[in-house]
Amino acid sequence: MHQATFDPLYAKIMSVISLSSDEKNLISKLFYTKEVKRNEYFLQEGQVCRQVGFITQGLMRYFINDQGEEKTYAFGHENCFVSNYESFVSQKPSAKNIQALENIRLLTISYHDLQQFYQLVKEGERFGRIVMEGVFIEGLQEISSLYTDTAEQRYENFLQQYPFVVQRIPQYHIASYVGVKPQSLSRIRKRLTTHPD
Amino acid sequence: MHQATFDPLYAKIMSVISLSSDEKNLISKLFYTKEVKRNEYFLQEGQVCRQVGFITQGLMRYFINDQGEEKTYAFGHENCFVSNYESFVSQKPSAKNIQALENIRLLTISYHDLQQFYQLVKEGERFGRIVMEGVFIEGLQEISSLYTDTAEQRYENFLQQYPFVVQRIPQYHIASYVGVKPQSLSRIRKRLTTHPD
Repeated sequence: MHQATFDPLYAKIMSVISLSSDEKNLISKLFYTKEVKRNEYFLQEGQVCRQVGFITQGLMRYFINDQGEEKTYAFGHENCFVSNYESFVSQKPSAKNIQALENIRLLTISYHDLQQFYQLVKEGERFGRIVMEGVFIEGLQEISSLYTDTAEQRYENFLQQYPFVVQRIPQYHIASYVGVKPQSLSRIRKRLTTHPD
Repeated sequence: MHQATFDPLYAKIMSVISLSSDEKNLISKLFYTKEVKRNEYFLQEGQVCRQVGFITQGLMRYFINDQGEEKTYAFGHENCFVSNYESFVSQKPSAKNIQALENIRLLTISYHDLQQFYQLVKEGERFGRIVMEGVFIEGLQEISSLYTDTAEQRYENFLQQYPFVVQRIPQYHIASYVGVKPQSLSRIRKRLTTHPD
């Protein structure tokens, strides 16, 4: 594995804790490269989420199946971790799906190897604690928004949260995230352009 | 402060990590005793949650105000930590209320002192990481259940989660947790007794 592949991952971790070169070396042994082809799944409903991934290339969507209807509630892109932590932490079957919208390159770590990371990296537990705090806040916001926000608020959330990948996401997935039919999306867009806050 | 007061807190922490006597001594300096009288608030909507508490005596309820209606979604009791972690972690105003149902005795730690705990207790960060994982799973379950479970499922959740405090919780708070009027609660109870799973 060419060293450069790991640089974005090191940078991501070092935005929270410090890493020695020995620790970087360890990390390069705990994470494996993986590819997920467009339209294939990183995780499917009913499977246990056995890995956390770090996306080095590509775009994913997270969705639930609500009585046959796919409801997209989040997207993942370069320099993001990707996982269903609810399933990963508990090692219980996932109620959620994570699908590649483009060909994906990832660095993945298994549940077992993440425990190694926590134990062997000096500030590993600190990293885990701070990431979990973020995942917790984000997870609650996602689910509350899904149940309580209007379509307009959902669309504004979308623009705020994914400004760099908007152009790469098909309209019907944006519509699914917003919670409307694709033909209603342009109406919402127009309304927000005519009467911006 | 009499040492014995801290024993349940040490035991709670030591169910996850080890503590030296120096570390116990430190913890006894980072946590302060606090009382909250019956019907008073540990945290009110709009306030920033500045403390995590550990309940040594008494019972609390967590609720949100949904357009004037109080919706109870959790209870806290002896040997539980009590906090709105969403507000505490982000240090942003709380959307939730935490109210004493009985006279409460707590040991509380401030945001600043918890950071001290993380830094100075050898396995402090590990404790934080593992507690946050639990809080995350529990938080997602609470909110999904609130939006998707039937009244019967909510009542069964309640019995499973709070077996030791059922007798101490007024009927109208149980009804609020289940999401029905108090007069409907006995009907649900009867149905579950007649047709148990």
